[in-house]
Amino acid sequence: MPGIPPTRFVYLGPEGTFAEQALRTIPAAERGSRTPARSVPEALDAVRHDDADAALVPLENSIGGAVGVTFDEIVDGAPLMIAREVVLPVEFVLAARPGRSLTEIRTVAAHPQASTQCRGWLREQLPNATVVDVLSNGAAAAAAAAGEQDAAICAPIGVTRQRLAVLAEKIADHGDAVTRFVLVTRPSSPPPPTGDDVTSLAVFIAHDRVGALLAVLMELAVRGVNLTRIESRPTGEALGRYVFFLDCTGHVADDRVGEALRGLRRICADVRFLGSYPRHRWGVAPHERPVPAPPGLSDADYADATAWLARLRAGELS
Amino acid sequence: MPGIPPTRFVYLGPEGTFAEQALRTIPAAERGSRTPARSVPEALDAVRHDDADAALVPLENSIGGAVGVTFDEIVDGAPLMIAREVVLPVEFVLAARPGRSLTEIRTVAAHPQASTQCRGWLREQLPNATVVDVLSNGAAAAAAAAGEQDAAICAPIGVTRQRLAVLAEKIADHGDAVTRFVLVTRPSSPPPPTGDDVTSLAVFIAHDRVGALLAVLMELAVRGVNLTRIESRPTGEALGRYVFFLDCTGHVADDRVGEALRGLRRICADVRFLGSYPRHRWGVAPHERPVPAPPGLSDADYADATAWLARLRAGELS
Amino acid sequence: MPGIPPTRFVYLGPEGTFAEQALRTIPAAERGSRTPARSVPEALDAVRHDDADAALVPLENSIGGAVGVTFDEIVDGAPLMIAREVVLPVEFVLAARPGRSLTEIRTVAAHPQASTQCRGWLREQLPNATVVDVLSNGAAAAAAAAGEQDAAICAPIGVTRQRLAVLAEKIADHGDAVTRFVLVTRPSSPPPPTGDDVTSLAVFIAHDRVGALLAVLMELAVRGVNLTRIESRPTGEALGRYVFFLDCTGHVADDRVGEALRGLRRICADVRFLGSYPRHRWGVAPHERPVPAPPGLSDADYADATAWLARLRAGELS
Amino acid sequence: MPGIPPTRFVYLGPEGTFAEQALRTIPAAERGSRTPARSVPEALDAVRHDDADAALVPLENSIGGAVGVTFDEIVDGAPLMIAREVVLPVEFVLAARPGRSLTEIRTVAAHPQASTQCRGWLREQLPNATVVDVLSNGAAAAAAAAGEQDAAICAPIGVTRQRLAVLAEKIADHGDAVTRFVLVTRPSSPPPPTGDDVTSLAVFIAHDRVGALLAVLMELAVRGVNLTRIESRPTGEALGRYVFFLDCTGHVADDRVGEALRGLRRICADVRFLGSYPRHRWGVAPHERPVPAPPGLSDADYADATAWLARLRAGELS
Repeated sequence: MPGIPPTRFVYLGPEGTFAEQALRTIPAAERGSRTPARSVPEALDAVRHDDADAALVPLENSIGGAVGVTFDEIVDGAPLMIAREVVLPVEFVLAARPGRSLTEIRTVAAHPQASTQCRGWLREQLPNATVVDVLSNGAAAAAAAAGEQDAAICAPIGVTRQRLAVLAEKIADHGDAVTRFVLVTRPSSPPPPTGDDVTSLAVFIAHDRVGALLAVLMELAVRGVNLTRIESRPTGEALGRYVFFLDCTGHVADDRVGEALRGLRRICADVRFLGSYPRHRWGVAPHERPVPAPPGLSDADYADATAWLARLRAGELS
Repeated sequence: MPGIPPTRFVYLGPEGTFAEQALRTIPAAERGSRTPARSVPEALDAVRHDDADAALVPLENSIGGAVGVTFDEIVDGAPLMIAREVVLPVEFVLAARPGRSLTEIRTVAAHPQASTQCRGWLREQLPNATVVDVLSNGAAAAAAAAGEQDAAICAPIGVTRQRLAVLAEKIADHGDAVTRFVLVTRPSSPPPPTGDDVTSLAVFIAHDRVGALLAVLMELAVRGVNLTRIESRPTGEALGRYVFFLDCTGHVADDRVGEALRGLRRICADVRFLGSYPRHRWGVAPHERPVPAPPGLSDADYADATAWLARLRAGELS
Repeated sequence: MPGIPPTRFVYLGPEGTFAEQALRTIPAAERGSRTPARSVPEALDAVRHDDADAALVPLENSIGGAVGVTFDEIVDGAPLMIAREVVLPVEFVLAARPGRSLTEIRTVAAHPQASTQCRGWLREQLPNATVVDVLSNGAAAAAAAAGEQDAAICAPIGVTRQRLAVLAEKIADHGDAVTRFVLVTRPSSPPPPTGDDVTSLAVFIAHDRVGALLAVLMELAVRGVNLTRIESRPTGEALGRYVFFLDCTGHVADDRVGEALRGLRRICADVRFLGSYPRHRWGVAPHERPVPAPPGLSDADYADATAWLARLRAGELS
Repeated sequence: MPGIPPTRFVYLGPEGTFAEQALRTIPAAERGSRTPARSVPEALDAVRHDDADAALVPLENSIGGAVGVTFDEIVDGAPLMIAREVVLPVEFVLAARPGRSLTEIRTVAAHPQASTQCRGWLREQLPNATVVDVLSNGAAAAAAAAGEQDAAICAPIGVTRQRLAVLAEKIADHGDAVTRFVLVTRPSSPPPPTGDDVTSLAVFIAHDRVGALLAVLMELAVRGVNLTRIESRPTGEALGRYVFFLDCTGHVADDRVGEALRGLRRICADVRFLGSYPRHRWGVAPHERPVPAPPGLSDADYADATAWLARLRAGELS
């Protein structure tokens, strides 16, 4: 973030979940304060009310339960901005108090979504164990540490926090799942473009236009702006409009993204800009992955076309 | 559903939640057996393994926590089919044991997402009460009935089941929210077209095609097929493809939907047909809302064009 | 035209044709010199070599024989600009020396395309007359005046020039045909926008791009720019490219046309701007036909979107 | 052509022009009768009235003067069909009576468009010669043969017919120009597909639809049908509609072309099918250029998609 870097961070709690683990990959958060929030709205409100400088909340995938509404909550209320994304592999572990072995495990504390994602592993490795639902991955680790249950399905950070021992690593049935978190701040200038950025938008479309989404995508396609994510959100029919959350390639400072945004502004009932920030690729540093603009769509191409148009308007054909 | 109607139903449990309430709006389910499942995957697996005939699971909105992955789970494994949708208004109530008054309430049991959706009401009406997280709306009602907490935020069905009294109705901050559930069965012939149907699809797109989503939407738009919902789902980058879940207007038996489906089949890496079923409009019976096909796109228009083409191929111009 | 108005005009000759008639509808031409040229290229070369200030040549319809190549000739060579269009109804007359009556006519001088366009009338009214081909409508009138043939099919201006008498008016079989002429000058600032303008372009597309024309039309459609004319021109296959001549609604000074032009510049192998000029509607004065910009596409809408984008880039969300 | 091959041919006359030369490349015409017509309408009417079986008329480029209206004339009246195309390089020669040398030439007979296309060569090689306009390339050759002028610009066939000698070959300024002729018959079954065919259409669009041409192109693009030629034709404004002449890749018997045609039939005010016939590539035999259908758009792909749709409708998901 430009200007003063944030020092007071909130994240979707409780402690010991993937959200905390994601937050701690950010150097400024490692140095600053880190406070868990009970819910995504609570985390975002803390930023809105200046009780915190930035909130780390999940955006995609189902770990932690609160995803899905995050975009709704960002849009609903005083403006907020996404300043950064963190993509984290979902690596569930089975953990227990030190000294326990896998064969002794009779009960496993787990968030329902965590046990669901590991159900193949549980069926094979612990066919006789009972899964006990708890409210979060952090609570699962705490229950194992307190001896309430024999073991826990939790995030690696829960193991560290609760001084547990790992009985089995990477027990999720789909080994390549990831969760995507975003760091949300009050509005300010977006971070500078890196050449591989994401721009997030909320686009509102009037109810009665046939092909309205097609028109939105054409505005993007004509400028070579790709979508990496799209989600329509249900709104009450009485409201008579649709909202789409879009993640696009490129940065608001890029000419082609700017022109696409202006186009959406002109044709849509409303457009909310939610931020431009570096794309996070797991294990790939930004400087290792220069992503050239598509042919004809670089800032230089835009500058050339603008200069050419100025010549035409001045009567200088060539 | 054509053929033998289902008699054994599962639903996302526990008892006393919106899912059970939605299921009981279906006459056949009212007459048949109704078994709660611990998770969406468990509910779907019961159908896949013929332990049940149909599963009622949430598809949109966040009540109950398990939404969002429902489509993933339908697609992942032996084929299933959506045979029906049920759209339910989200009507949270504050309930307590009979005889209690609002002023006495010091603790409120609630699923975290339920308390989040009612946080404005809680702040105004019960500013000093403590919210205690529980694992479901059904568990909240049970906790109030058992006297563990003073009151519960729950669904109307939880009040009935636990013989509670309603202290306040419609306490959600957004009064017009709805949850959409679907009834999932093993594959069979879709229910007949009603003139106002939804067709659900999972569309897989190869990673490296620019504008691939635009191409998908053009296949639909050219046949006058509208989208009512779209969601991209994250896949591991290693997989190198994107999946989109689409809800379209129309029925697989309609010529225009059939032609659009054939077009998607030809251009996409994969297409999974997930069902065609009557659109559920809350409070509107199907016969009250005839929806004419767009100009040029009725089955009669298709028949006319097909006959014309046959004449051309036979050398009969006119 | 801004700057010094043209005083030396050439037109596709010979004298006494529709081209001269069209030229004389322009007040400046009525006051200036008017010289016939033997061909469209000769007329354009006179402007290119500064032997004339402006050339009036046909662009559409087939009267006079030279149409069709006009755009080719404008594009091929030093830049020229279309400064004005003149649309003229095609009103062929049958004319003869004064005193002749229709029943006496045995031979009719006519350009082959003129007699073709009047063949229904000739069959009915002069079934026994012989049509004698001549090289132009002007030559037909001259042949009748010289007594070489009994009558001529010609333009009204040919009647005046050769002091003939009209035997029959409006004898073309299609009464509503028009010919479109353009006034071509050396490059200068286009005439100011009137709110109902035409912009002419030549767009070159690389051979191997599938859907390239669709991409061109999308650039226009996204900015609400309509096409009123399109023509692909054959190029040798060895050249490996296609050229399209487009007439679009709007003026190069309009924001939406400017943005569309910049888009074409970026995606096409080459774009030649050929002029922006008031649309000529026969019998309708410009001030009687205000044409509002499509919703969201006025210059004010563009200004609003540009200001909004500047706010986003500055971090001012609202 | 299927059925009885044509034996009576007409062509745009007079004798000794490129049209006759093009006709004689067709074996059946070499064996049958060949009659010149005074104009394109006259040639087409001969076929309509069964005075001839087939008419060879120019469609593109400007040699002979009558092009451009050919499509209009095909559409206007009883249905006709394009059964074949012939593409001929434009090879103008300078010819004179045997024994003459270039240095003796003082006058050159030429059709105005022919002399226009050779004006660079004339300026360099015969700067002092006078060009005398005549009505056709055939008339030019005849004038040279009769000794009325010293030489003629004409087609190679004019040299043969009039027993002239060639003084200079390939004198057109643009060496790679071609003229495209079509052979027009009464309606019958189109010739069988070769894998590299052209389909010609006239598409009528209602006046008041914004983006109507874009909709037409989308119908084609979605089925992978490319355009090789497009031309809008002026219609009187009173008619309130536009007509576009399109040449598309593929054959009416191809599934993808058939589906695109049916789509156009459904959305356009009117569609006139004008024929499917092998694409003529100069100097390339059809069997040397197999052109595979685009991915997903072969007849086999269509058959696969149709079978898949049938399975879906029967409730067989997989």
